[in-house]
Amino acid sequence: MSNLPKVKIREKFHYKRIGQGIITDIRNRLPYLRSDYSDAINYRVIPSTVYIFFTNLLPAIAFAQDMFDHTDNSYGLNEVLMSSAMGGIVFGLFSGQPLCIVGVTGPIAIFNFTVYDLIKDRDVDYFSFMCWVCLWSTLMHFILAIFNTVNYIRYITMYSCDVFGFFINCIYIQKGIQILTRQFADGDYAKGFASVMVALLMCIFGLASVFFGTDSHYIKPVVRKIFSDYGLPLSVVFFSGFIHFGGYLNNIDFETLPISQSFRPTFEGRRSDWFIRFWEGCTVGDVFLALPFALLLTFLFYFDHNVSSLMCQAHQFPVTKPSSFHWDYFLLGITTGVSGILGIPAPNGLIPQAPLHSSSLCIKTHDYESGVDIVTGMVEQRVTNIAQGLLTLGMMARPLLIVLGNVPQSVLAGLFWIMGLSGLNGNEVTNKLRFLFTDPETIRLNPTEYQAKLSKIERKWLILFVIFELIAFACEFGITCTRGAIGFPGVLMFFAIFATFFDRIFPPDQLEMLDTHAASAFILQNLHRETKI
Amino acid sequence: MSNLPKVKIREKFHYKRIGQGIITDIRNRLPYLRSDYSDAINYRVIPSTVYIFFTNLLPAIAFAQDMFDHTDNSYGLNEVLMSSAMGGIVFGLFSGQPLCIVGVTGPIAIFNFTVYDLIKDRDVDYFSFMCWVCLWSTLMHFILAIFNTVNYIRYITMYSCDVFGFFINCIYIQKGIQILTRQFADGDYAKGFASVMVALLMCIFGLASVFFGTDSHYIKPVVRKIFSDYGLPLSVVFFSGFIHFGGYLNNIDFETLPISQSFRPTFEGRRSDWFIRFWEGCTVGDVFLALPFALLLTFLFYFDHNVSSLMCQAHQFPVTKPSSFHWDYFLLGITTGVSGILGIPAPNGLIPQAPLHSSSLCIKTHDYESGVDIVTGMVEQRVTNIAQGLLTLGMMARPLLIVLGNVPQSVLAGLFWIMGLSGLNGNEVTNKLRFLFTDPETIRLNPTEYQAKLSKIERKWLILFVIFELIAFACEFGITCTRGAIGFPGVLMFFAIFATFFDRIFPPDQLEMLDTHAASAFILQNLHRETKI
Repeated sequence: MSNLPKVKIREKFHYKRIGQGIITDIRNRLPYLRSDYSDAINYRVIPSTVYIFFTNLLPAIAFAQDMFDHTDNSYGLNEVLMSSAMGGIVFGLFSGQPLCIVGVTGPIAIFNFTVYDLIKDRDVDYFSFMCWVCLWSTLMHFILAIFNTVNYIRYITMYSCDVFGFFINCIYIQKGIQILTRQFADGDYAKGFASVMVALLMCIFGLASVFFGTDSHYIKPVVRKIFSDYGLPLSVVFFSGFIHFGGYLNNIDFETLPISQSFRPTFEGRRSDWFIRFWEGCTVGDVFLALPFALLLTFLFYFDHNVSSLMCQAHQFPVTKPSSFHWDYFLLGITTGVSGILGIPAPNGLIPQAPLHSSSLCIKTHDYESGVDIVTGMVEQRVTNIAQGLLTLGMMARPLLIVLGNVPQSVLAGLFWIMGLSGLNGNEVTNKLRFLFTDPETIRLNPTEYQAKLSKIERKWLILFVIFELIAFACEFGITCTRGAIGFPGVLMFFAIFATFFDRIFPPDQLEMLDTHAASAFILQNLHRETKI
Repeated sequence: MSNLPKVKIREKFHYKRIGQGIITDIRNRLPYLRSDYSDAINYRVIPSTVYIFFTNLLPAIAFAQDMFDHTDNSYGLNEVLMSSAMGGIVFGLFSGQPLCIVGVTGPIAIFNFTVYDLIKDRDVDYFSFMCWVCLWSTLMHFILAIFNTVNYIRYITMYSCDVFGFFINCIYIQKGIQILTRQFADGDYAKGFASVMVALLMCIFGLASVFFGTDSHYIKPVVRKIFSDYGLPLSVVFFSGFIHFGGYLNNIDFETLPISQSFRPTFEGRRSDWFIRFWEGCTVGDVFLALPFALLLTFLFYFDHNVSSLMCQAHQFPVTKPSSFHWDYFLLGITTGVSGILGIPAPNGLIPQAPLHSSSLCIKTHDYESGVDIVTGMVEQRVTNIAQGLLTLGMMARPLLIVLGNVPQSVLAGLFWIMGLSGLNGNEVTNKLRFLFTDPETIRLNPTEYQAKLSKIERKWLILFVIFELIAFACEFGITCTRGAIGFPGVLMFFAIFATFFDRIFPPDQLEMLDTHAASAFILQNLHRETKI
């Protein structure tokens, strides 16, 4: 989309030099800064902003509630709104890859309340402790970024990304169920089952709207697109209103999102100025106890943020502007530290929101020959990310906060299911499973393009690969359901490293078709192999 | 499927002669009687019996409940079971077209309680009055059959059949909603919303199972078939068990089907011997008041039964045995009279069950080239119809009646939705509407076979035709929702006759593509044009 003369990516630097990755990133991206705004004069920016605002904000709120419940009200809605807003605005304005949406993720929510669980019996202030975790982590981010270690993500393969995507989508579905289960907690079964009904209806209509907009052949493609662009936000709005439609619904007191005072921290024991006095309420021992937690947090963000960034500029998106992993990871270190000091959950790259954001920015035309939409271009710019951050910040102000307080929790559950199911629908793990269960005769005689591709792989290797995917998923999902959830980043790392040994298990010709590096050749230009610290 | 040498259908009779239609029907069909049993030695008979047993029995029960509520308990479950059983056994054994499933339909349920509503303020015994209605109607059936007037159904076009199918499927969906609404009646909202949840879940899984079995390409076709064969019955069984799965469901007291004493009439004021003393409790005036009602009932059965019979041997089914409209209508007269004397609702041809029955008897093989199932044969026999009748009779016995009393009403609602939605999915009115809303470019550049066929019709005529279809549907649906429901058969007749004037509205070449006679050339052999009374 850029009208700039194509700037040749500088790739001749020696990555042995300290900070060279960051400098290269900035030098490469800086020439596009102007076009990052001028390219935003495009209609697609509007649906994309609306879409990403809803898909970022609402799940974040659900995670807020999770943390609220599991940390004795330490974190609440305001903290999560502030964190999301900061992520959007800071990464929108300053990141090298503004396609990557940054906000409060499921794993960080789990991390935060697992830490709470582990230290609550110690005589230490939770916010101070978390602040130390974040500050240590900031230091680690800086070190990792400056010493060019982000280059190692070039070894991350699609195996890890696909399994992580699969895992996150399953977490979304599980989350929807958990929200609904909570509606029964006070023994009001009418409310409970009514909530399940609303969530099911919303899920049906939301998915139908997505299907109508993408896979059906009704009306004109340009009108259809409205359904895929605004179907999800409109479902949220419609079903928030639906509970007021009357009839038997009037007798139900639906639970809505819990809100508190505008712009004030949720936890009553906190001062209203947001600043955590991290030097108070902590012993020196506690400060050093925070170190291993910081290490895990750094692991998590290293993987989660960079994978998000990789996925939002993956093969299927016609990205033309350069990537920026080193600088963005450095910037993430800053926001992590600031989050610690403000006593809010630290934001990082969001899956599936980051790739969904890219997807919503694609310009598609309908190809009547094949009957599918074909991507012809992409609106690469900063405005959508900044705008959704500002909108989120605006939600903290009173009138809008009350609007938010009117969204029923069941709508949130429906939203989780829609996102989780449509995510699973496009996931590679699901697709491979589908392929394995498809009638072999259909594949032999009348294969789709995708089936023809997979058919070239020997079946036994394909099955083994899918088993490896499912094992990784089972471990990731399993650990988050236990008290060992804090070790989740370790599991991610383990399987990312495990995948680098695939060349000793699979024959090279098979592996080539099964697994590829997540970073495309274009992105790899910024991630050099000759890294030495 | 018959191994008999193809018997030449006798068509040389002069239809001017009284009773000739009935005689021809019997002479034509009799040679196939033996093969009607020998052909039944086929696996398809098993899934077909199970399928049609459930799809006949359960909706009938729902209509039973409707009548129960609207006739102050005059008709109940036992009456409906007996009527369905009689229909299955009598038409299975003696009809000329045993493919046509006979049982208690929605329209007759509406007819019965509308009559109740109209005469309840008169000093007349309802059962005696209904018996007179049935007896008069029997006489009319006999006259119509003997004077060969059933020949006139050769003028019924697909227009009437399609609209009636569309109407019935919409009634099914409405029925599901009504059942659920009733779950709230006692102010137990938890039960109400839990029932909606169960119905929604059942609908989702039932439709998914049908889709998996028919349109998907997973596993082998032979295994897939199990899902389309047994998906619906298993859904009923599974979701009847689902409400006992525990958790919050344990706190809900789901309403189940109301049962009463085995083999005894439901209404307490009735004698236990089932026989209605129709000469008691009626004045001569009442007997003649029954006449116009009998006329409406005869109208209804003339249309409904013959359309059912037409639809279960329609173009898409490779029927090879001769049809039998005159004799079957005569037989229907007998069952109608017997129903009156037994004080049970009169059974007649069932839509959508009759065509669903034919469909379940089709032998299909999967064509990998086109990716769809192709019908290669059909198991035409009497055993499925008799067996489902006997099974229904068996349900009246105590242990099984209690099993039936454990089916939750919400499962019934789910069943109605599954049947209604899958019926609508294949209906011609729906298909034409879909065509009109499909992107014209898709149709121009990449049409399906069906789209190519419809494209040949001028758009304005197609739109006009669909408008006529929708008007007829609106009138049929509208009248059943008012106290004028009794006039429903008149509306059916009106539009059937209206369709014969289409040749004055549409150009002949267009009409040929829009509307055809419901009876195929093969069936028409038994329905002669030269009828004179």
